[in-house]
This record gives sequence, C-alpha cells and structure tokens, in this order.
Amino acid sequence: MQNFTFHNPTRIIFGEGQIAALDAHVPPDARVLITFGGGSIKSNGVLVQVQAALGDRAWHVFGGIEPNPTYETLMEAVALAREKNIDFLLAVGGGSVIDGTKFIAAALRFDGEPWDILAKQVEVCDAMPFGTVLTLPATGSEMNNGGVISHRAKGDKLPFRSDATYPVFSVLDPVTTYSLPPRQIANGVVDAFVHIVEQYLTYPVDARVQDRFAEGLLITLTEVGPQALAEPHNYAVRANLMWTATLALNGLIGAGVPQDWATHMLGHEITALHGLDHAQTLAIVLPAMLSARRESKRAKLLQYAERVWNITEGSEDERVSAAITATRVFFERMSVGTRLRDYQIGGQSISTLIAKLGEHGMTALGEHGDVTLDVSRQVYQLAV
Amino acid sequence: MQNFTFHNPTRIIFGEGQIAALDAHVPPDARVLITFGGGSIKSNGVLVQVQAALGDRAWHVFGGIEPNPTYETLMEAVALAREKNIDFLLAVGGGSVIDGTKFIAAALRFDGEPWDILAKQVEVCDAMPFGTVLTLPATGSEMNNGGVISHRAKGDKLPFRSDATYPVFSVLDPVTTYSLPPRQIANGVVDAFVHIVEQYLTYPVDARVQDRFAEGLLITLTEVGPQALAEPHNYAVRANLMWTATLALNGLIGAGVPQDWATHMLGHEITALHGLDHAQTLAIVLPAMLSARRESKRAKLLQYAERVWNITEGSEDERVSAAITATRVFFERMSVGTRLRDYQIGGQSISTLIAKLGEHGMTALGEHGDVTLDVSRQVYQLAV
Repeated sequence: MQNFTFHNPTRIIFGEGQIAALDAHVPPDARVLITFGGGSIKSNGVLVQVQAALGDRAWHVFGGIEPNPTYETLMEAVALAREKNIDFLLAVGGGSVIDGTKFIAAALRFDGEPWDILAKQVEVCDAMPFGTVLTLPATGSEMNNGGVISHRAKGDKLPFRSDATYPVFSVLDPVTTYSLPPRQIANGVVDAFVHIVEQYLTYPVDARVQDRFAEGLLITLTEVGPQALAEPHNYAVRANLMWTATLALNGLIGAGVPQDWATHMLGHEITALHGLDHAQTLAIVLPAMLSARRESKRAKLLQYAERVWNITEGSEDERVSAAITATRVFFERMSVGTRLRDYQIGGQSISTLIAKLGEHGMTALGEHGDVTLDVSRQVYQLAV
Repeated sequence: MQNFTFHNPTRIIFGEGQIAALDAHVPPDARVLITFGGGSIKSNGVLVQVQAALGDRAWHVFGGIEPNPTYETLMEAVALAREKNIDFLLAVGGGSVIDGTKFIAAALRFDGEPWDILAKQVEVCDAMPFGTVLTLPATGSEMNNGGVISHRAKGDKLPFRSDATYPVFSVLDPVTTYSLPPRQIANGVVDAFVHIVEQYLTYPVDARVQDRFAEGLLITLTEVGPQALAEPHNYAVRANLMWTATLALNGLIGAGVPQDWATHMLGHEITALHGLDHAQTLAIVLPAMLSARRESKRAKLLQYAERVWNITEGSEDERVSAAITATRVFFERMSVGTRLRDYQIGGQSISTLIAKLGEHGMTALGEHGDVTLDVSRQVYQLAV
C-alpha cells in the first residue's frame, strides 16, 4: 500500500424524503442562492421540495448552468450572489451543476480574476459554504472537492480542486432520479464504472481493502445498471446506484493506490472534437485502452476478470481478453456504444485527436507515465 | 437500504514515516498535551518521533491512561491541561488512550460535572481539538466520535459520542505496530472482525455496497490476521490490518443498514465479572450468538458463508453451521479461545451475568430487539 492522506468532511444525508432535512442543515439565517441546470427540477417537483424545506429563509434562484459548465455563465451567478448578498449556495442537480457551484463558491471569496483558479491553478484558500441536492448519480462531485469548468470564449476545459470546495452536505434522495432519461442513467453508470476502473486497474500494491471496495462497487454497477434502465421506479436499485456512484469518486478507493486516468484524457479530446457525451467517450476508450495496455495491467486484469466477472477458465491471455470483452458487453448492454463508428466517427479523426493531446501536454499518461502519443494513437485505432 | 446520515471529518494520514507529518497538522502555535498509556511508546521510539515532529511547540505529557480508561485518571489530565494552558491534545496509543482523550477534550470545554456526559448522557457541544497517533489497530476510535469510559469508584462503564469528538486527524503508521505483543494483535483482529459482523450479520435490506464493503473487510482480516501473528515486521500485512480495523468502525459500513451489537453487550458483562480482555469475550460470545439466532439471521448467514468463507456445498443448515464453525476456527487460529471454559469459567457464572444484563437494562438486544434475557442465557449456555 502506498502512503496516503484521506479526508472527506462532506455530510451525506441519504434516502427518500430527505430533501426536507435541508431545514436542519442550511444555516437558519442563510440567504441562499439555489443553482440548477436546464430546469428539470421544476417539472419533477424537486425545486418545490427544496423551496418548501428552506421555509422562511431568503432565497434566489440561478438556472441555466450547462452540461459542461462555463466560466461565463458561472460569473453571472457570482454577480447575482453579490447583488443579493447571498451567503450560502445550494446546488440542485447533477455533476455539472455541482462542479459549477464549487467554482461560484470559490470565485465569491477569491481575490483576483477567478479564471486564474483554472488557467494558473492558483490555490483556492476559501469558498462560500454550499450544499447540494443530487439528482443524477454519476460524477461523484457531491462528495468530493473537484470540478471541471469550461471557458466558452477560449475553448478551454480545465479542472480545479481545493479543500475549501467540499460540499458541507449533500442530500441524496434516490426518488429524484426516477424521472431521468435512460441515456442519463446509462451515462451515469458508465461514468461511475470508469471512475472506479481508473483507480483500480493499474498494478498491484497489496492494497486489499481498496481493491475489494473497488470490486464491490464494480459488481454492484453490473447488477444495478441494467436494472436501473429496466425498472426506473425501483427504489432499491436507484438507491444502490446512487450510493455506488458517490463512493466511486470520493477519495476512498483511490487512497494508497496508483491511479491511471488516461482513459479520461483520451475521452476528453473526443468530446471536445465531436461533442459526444463524456460517458460515451469513456465507453469507447476504455476497452481499447485495456487492450493496448494488457501487458502492463496484466496482474490486475486477471484479478478483475476473476473477482468482478467470475472468469476463471482458460489461459491468462484468454481470461484477460474475456474480461475486456465483458466490459464492452456491459457498456453495450447499457445502450452505450463502444466504438467510434457507433457515433459515425472514422479513423480520419485520429490525427486531430493526437495533435490535441499533444497540445494539451498529454504525452505521458497513465499509472506508469508510459502512455505516449504513440500509445494513445494505438488506443484510438483500436477504438475505431 | 435504510435512510442514513454519514459524516466523518477525520483526516487520515497513513503510512511509514508519517509521524513527521504532525508538524503540518498540529497548529503551529499549539500548546500540546501528549496523552498515552502504559509507556510502550517510550520504549518503541514512537514518543521520540512525536516530540521531534512537534519541533518548537510547547508540549507536556500525561501518561498512565488505563486499558479501560477511568474518569478518575482522565480528570487528572483535565487538571494538568488547565494548569499548562493546553489548547491541543495529541493521543498516542490505541483505542483506550484515544477514547480517554476524547473525554478529556470534551471535559475541558464542558460546563458542569463532566461525569454527566456519561451518566446523564448530556450532549457534548464543544471539545478541545485533538489528533491521534495510532499504535494499535483494533477499535476504530481513531476515525470515529465515540468513547467508553469507566468510573473506578462507581464501577460503571459507559459510552458517549458527539460530533465534537472526531479526531481532527489520525496518523496511522503501520511500523508502530511491529513491537506489539501477539495477544494485542490477535485481540485487535477479533475486535475489528466482530465490529464488522455487528453491522453486517443481521437481515438483508438490499444494501449491496455496505454488504460488499463489510465482506471485503472480513475477508481481508481472515487473510492478514494470521499473517500479522506470523510475520510481525511484514509492512504490507500490518498496513492492511491497520486500514481494515479503522474502516471497520468509522460509520461507513453501518450507514443505511440494521445493526446488532448484542454480542458486545453480552461480552461487556463477562469482562466486568471476570476481567477478560474485550476481544476474548467477543470470541466467546459471537459463535454462540450466531448459533442461538441462526433462524432470524439465516439469510445473511448464508450470504456470509458463501461470500466470506466460500461455503457453497450442502444444505442451508449445513452451510450456516459451517460458517459459524469457520468463524470459531478463525478466532482460535488467532489464539483467542472461543469458550468460557478456555478461561476457566464455568456455567455457574451465567446466572450472575444474566442478572447484570438485567440490571443494565439489556433485555431487548439485537437488530430485532428480540434478544431477551432468556435468549442471552441460551447464548451464554452455548458458550460454556
């Protein structure tokens, strides 16, 4: 096991009806800005529940945070929060709304140009306190301190993280997910699955608990993912999915182990160039990435084959191949295509994708830093 | 899954050499009281490392906190902390030292007679901040907010917990455990194992992640427990044991599931009457408790049999029996006796133990509240 620090102060308030608990967790005299995205929280009744729970508190709303939240939009929220003397933010939505709200919280207490938080990675030492009401199980943003923000004008998409940007609390009510479109559920399952894989499928460091926790989360996703599509109102299924997606990226399973994240980097370029959903790009890249790197990942691929997919027959090579195939089949069972051609993208895009990776400095990715542009090219080719 | 709240703000600083990190986590101007137990931290070099890491900070020491920490001793530490204008506590030791330090921290900020925190369960709203350096993997106190304190004069042993008594940080350096006597390692393994079982072996509520995390921790203990006895200086083994014991009782696996704790209650009475180690009493009571309640725990016992012990052959009854036997064999492999007679205690103690349980109001224990005194008597009889 590698040395690590683990710290996660976010309070999780989990279960049906728990939106009402906001009253106990938002400061009684708070002036609240409710942030949200496209407005589904208005039609599915979540916003009404939130406003009822806030009672007599002063609140304002800021909607329209995009799927890839932009600096431009978020700075409008910063201006509104200042105008209304807001002192508490409440993100109601999925990962984009929560990521965006983390940036709003940081920008409100930042001395200088907030874009520098992203462009220059200036440290965020303070942020306005905020809570979240999660409505989409996927990114884990509800229990971590990171966010990814885009700049519309500059065309950049950059991450930040800070100890100051953990949510104070997150309300996870699985019922809020009943009305999600199947595509968003499917994407969420794939996203969470690949988050886990990026922290697990590297090389062994005898971190037995982290491995078993990761495997437990992966197995749970293979069970509840298809069920979540088939039975949208099955509470137990949605509850297991929601808690699994949160634990997939809250720091726990990644503590003390090597991490990869090359699949995410290659996927980002596909989104940037072709506009695919984040999870779609992960479903395309991961099977190809595992195939390209099957030698350096052999030991963990064999463990993954046995413990997650119950593959114990055949030679080592056969078991590794079977595990990669099982991964692909699972994504396709979730109705997420796993090849570029499933999205009408051909091999002619690859040189552009590689050039962009190079521009962004992504020339030594992965847990060994050996995913060069040549390896990435091979991965994209395997993904055609 | 049941509704739950999960919140754990303790920062874990894990790994070899991490005691030096105290310098980064104890406030630079702190006046520190180092609390410890019998003095092994002097002979094994841990105290020297702690003091070196504190650098120029003012520090004092308070040793002699007992295995079952007493109010009387802890109030001496409170007086010393007041005399020396201490503003930060640093517990260096195992669960007893950490439990005791939680009480010192609470008592220092408590308005009134601190014993009321235990006797009257008066809420603790504030406590002096404290960190820990863990030297004994067992109780999980390093990452939770509870403690158990004894009153020597009154003969009471009572629990308390508060959101104010989470350690700010805990340093977990597996090397500090190398010099522990085998009996303490064995006790720690059994203690952690039973902590997990109390939160897992109840009845199914379709909490898949909690179940798989619990099973992952149990399997890890079955692997590393015997290894920890056989190879005291095996870093990987001690690291896995240490992290497992912490995660066994930090609130995570118990969130959203029913809990039992009847084994602990019956064990406490054996310690009180006969002075056995806490873990010894758990090893005695658990197999008997599972036997006595095999019908109400049937579904989870079958799951436990299959997933933890790989028992898949035979009738349901045979598999349940085999799992209970495997549990007993594991404890005995750890050199912890699993019957009262292993400690020269006969059946004639049982009426006294039952009377004490009755005196303490322990008449409806377990996840269903159906462990009456009659059931407890049956358990003790099965444990002879």
